[in-house]
Amino acid sequence: MLLLEIDEQSRKPHYQQIVEQIQEKIENQMLPPGEKLPSTRRLAEHLGLHRSTVASAYQELWALGFVDLRPGACPKVRERMQLATVERRTPAGVVNWSAIASKASNAVWQTSREWEQESGRERKETGIDFSNLNIDYRLFPLDHFRSCLNQAIREHGLQLLGYGERAGFSPLREYIARHLQGHGISVTAEEILITNGLQQGIDLVFRMIAEPGKAVAIESPTYSEIIPLLRFCGLKPIEIPMRSDGMDLDVLEQAIAREKPVLVYTMPNFQNPTGVSTNQAHRERLLSICQQHRIPILEDGFEEEMKYFGRVVLPIKSMDKEQLVIYCGTFSKVLFPGVRIGWIAADKECIARLISIRSFSDLSSSMILQAGIYDFCQNGHYERHISKMHRLFRKRMQTMLEVLQREIKPAWASWREPSGGYLVWLKLAELKGKTPDLPEILRRHGVHAAFGDSFFLSKSADLHLRLSISQLNEAEIVRGIECLAQALAEVYG
Amino acid sequence: MLLLEIDEQSRKPHYQQIVEQIQEKIENQMLPPGEKLPSTRRLAEHLGLHRSTVASAYQELWALGFVDLRPGACPKVRERMQLATVERRTPAGVVNWSAIASKASNAVWQTSREWEQESGRERKETGIDFSNLNIDYRLFPLDHFRSCLNQAIREHGLQLLGYGERAGFSPLREYIARHLQGHGISVTAEEILITNGLQQGIDLVFRMIAEPGKAVAIESPTYSEIIPLLRFCGLKPIEIPMRSDGMDLDVLEQAIAREKPVLVYTMPNFQNPTGVSTNQAHRERLLSICQQHRIPILEDGFEEEMKYFGRVVLPIKSMDKEQLVIYCGTFSKVLFPGVRIGWIAADKECIARLISIRSFSDLSSSMILQAGIYDFCQNGHYERHISKMHRLFRKRMQTMLEVLQREIKPAWASWREPSGGYLVWLKLAELKGKTPDLPEILRRHGVHAAFGDSFFLSKSADLHLRLSISQLNEAEIVRGIECLAQALAEVYG
Repeated sequence: MLLLEIDEQSRKPHYQQIVEQIQEKIENQMLPPGEKLPSTRRLAEHLGLHRSTVASAYQELWALGFVDLRPGACPKVRERMQLATVERRTPAGVVNWSAIASKASNAVWQTSREWEQESGRERKETGIDFSNLNIDYRLFPLDHFRSCLNQAIREHGLQLLGYGERAGFSPLREYIARHLQGHGISVTAEEILITNGLQQGIDLVFRMIAEPGKAVAIESPTYSEIIPLLRFCGLKPIEIPMRSDGMDLDVLEQAIAREKPVLVYTMPNFQNPTGVSTNQAHRERLLSICQQHRIPILEDGFEEEMKYFGRVVLPIKSMDKEQLVIYCGTFSKVLFPGVRIGWIAADKECIARLISIRSFSDLSSSMILQAGIYDFCQNGHYERHISKMHRLFRKRMQTMLEVLQREIKPAWASWREPSGGYLVWLKLAELKGKTPDLPEILRRHGVHAAFGDSFFLSKSADLHLRLSISQLNEAEIVRGIECLAQALAEVYG
Repeated sequence: MLLLEIDEQSRKPHYQQIVEQIQEKIENQMLPPGEKLPSTRRLAEHLGLHRSTVASAYQELWALGFVDLRPGACPKVRERMQLATVERRTPAGVVNWSAIASKASNAVWQTSREWEQESGRERKETGIDFSNLNIDYRLFPLDHFRSCLNQAIREHGLQLLGYGERAGFSPLREYIARHLQGHGISVTAEEILITNGLQQGIDLVFRMIAEPGKAVAIESPTYSEIIPLLRFCGLKPIEIPMRSDGMDLDVLEQAIAREKPVLVYTMPNFQNPTGVSTNQAHRERLLSICQQHRIPILEDGFEEEMKYFGRVVLPIKSMDKEQLVIYCGTFSKVLFPGVRIGWIAADKECIARLISIRSFSDLSSSMILQAGIYDFCQNGHYERHISKMHRLFRKRMQTMLEVLQREIKPAWASWREPSGGYLVWLKLAELKGKTPDLPEILRRHGVHAAFGDSFFLSKSADLHLRLSISQLNEAEIVRGIECLAQALAEVYG
């Protein structure tokens, strides 16, 4: 007979005691697979318990996979699947993920791996790093933000714990609508959707239109994530070359006639990577062209706030009477990138459509952070921080331009002075037959920059360096450009 | 001559003063479009300034779109596009969004609107609401969480402001790996990706495989967002009927032979909407079938923590030696939904692929909240909160089952007792020719429930109600079921 002991003093129910003891005996191999257990009647008599107690125990052991139950027969110990501990696992697994994954997602993975290898190769432990466009978040008043977060949680409490409004925390949307007014954009809070950073805004718009055969006109060069993301969404990128004053609008008109893109993606301010800001006339013409063809514009205002050199050209959205501009903004390029709060301002129907996609993809953004950022904005910290960033980067960019002028010879490279932002785009002189390992030479001289290739879909004939000062102070800028000058002297010398 | 005044006392640069005064005159129509401005030389002489100062001012006015500049000619006032204030906007806009949007995103929008109309129709101001599966976040220890958030920000400081690791905050991933060990799952932190809630985990997996013609096997009925999301991703849902012990595995085997799905999506615990938990043998057989065909399983462990009635059947992932189970978990169903932190535990290559997609879609989750939740977990608050939820919901579910037993006649409906979670799935008796407006009758009796239809792809012959107790205390449960009994008495009486 099975030896079990019922402890009447224990708070554990009888059935639970039976389950645990039998489970232990099975796990210790004292009851091997195939072994018969006593019938409920016999075990109940033996333990002096009600039959239903033993039946519950057997039911539980069955649910846990330790016994087989068949009507009219005694329970039998079952061969249970083992736990997959790390030692027991097949190292490679059986799934061929590249066969399960779509062609598009295989391509995205390939791109990711190439980028990782490159950034791995270009280890930036030493030297001055102009390659990174992330903001210097050491400048962010974290203590103020922490107070605001506390204040928001105290004030709104449990309200912040739900999914919240699908479009985002409405006081924050109202703040953003007021703030956009300062950039000439008239929208209501109902025309705003809060996203996880600007990147999600772009992704949502691309997902809204994604369909095989559809094309999107983009600037060339452009933000390096755009082309892989378009392709992942099954959309065809149409490259419109960047001139010194922005996207070539004659080429755009030809492309519209020929390829009928369903969207034009543009960064009118401090374009990434060229740093070009378009003027009012260019913006008006772009808008007119798109109005005429009823093609929406996706306006990426990622550095809208960083117009610190005057020339406050207003966003295209500011003139958008026909509501075809989908404007994306973000807090990442002034506050800190990890805030993951951006927004889309667009036609109400467009916003409603984007919300519906968002509801199926990740539901909503965290209300707690939204409320914290709202408090930060509402208390004037955001505006004050923008002023501080303007002061700092006006000086930093002036230093950058002065030291470039002083150190980099016209025979080596040319560039245009940006009207704000963090970027200077260096066009290097032709290398006439030479093919030096530029990244290696730069590294040897203690300086890093982003190379032009990664921003073009088609290969560019010219060599470019994108220099970002977003994480560098004046001393670092001076030292970095001096190093760059030495590197270029070696290349062209 | 143009009347401008330079204020030598002002801190504003001279060129800026010129810009502002000319801009004002243009905006006030004092300088109409087409009007010629003086040459730089003349205006400079007149104001007693250097020519380059005036030239800068004209450059800026040009960038802002107020003047046209042509070499050798005087600047001319330009007809500038007006700002699109709310009054000036075309109410409807020119874009036909349903033509721009893909077929799939039009469908998602349609679904969203239907759901909104329904939830609008079923206003739940009054009465007891069994329709909502959101957790009762009034139970959440918000003050403890606030302290943890503060502690995390103080401890990690600026580190939390960057994008952080793409897979998520590593201490949190390590905690989740340890916590999963308690559910029998052996994975390392490298096999975990933090997502914006479990929903994003599902979306990422679907996006990884999305390709026309590919199929995914799902339970029927299932979580209402699954079918629209699959279709949005261009994937074909294959319905496998739910039996009282889980997905019908014989039907699954036939479907695999016939339609070769690339993924099987399952909720082994407290399935939404049926509340069914599968037993160990079912889990083993499902895993064996998928191993044999090398088909990954997407295991949705959304209520893994809520096994408060004993019968701790371990997740399928716990036996996954061949690494084909993609396990998704979340904090939303125990802590609060707005936390927007979930995770995926899967094969390393699969995780790397999902991260690559995520990097192009919304980059990463906010480090600040991740660090706050980590602190909350690390200080034992999470485990304590789970114990509290177990105590509360064990009693609440017992009350629910007792009052159902007492109030609902067998002639009206049948149900199974769940082994935990928040759901009871009521199968209503056949209505023999009657077609009463059930939602309306329930509302009239002050009670709301989710109707079965929304969880099936194909129409189900039977009528079901999904009753969720996730937001109700015992008194509310008793009152709600009493109201439901009155409603059903009216229907069947």
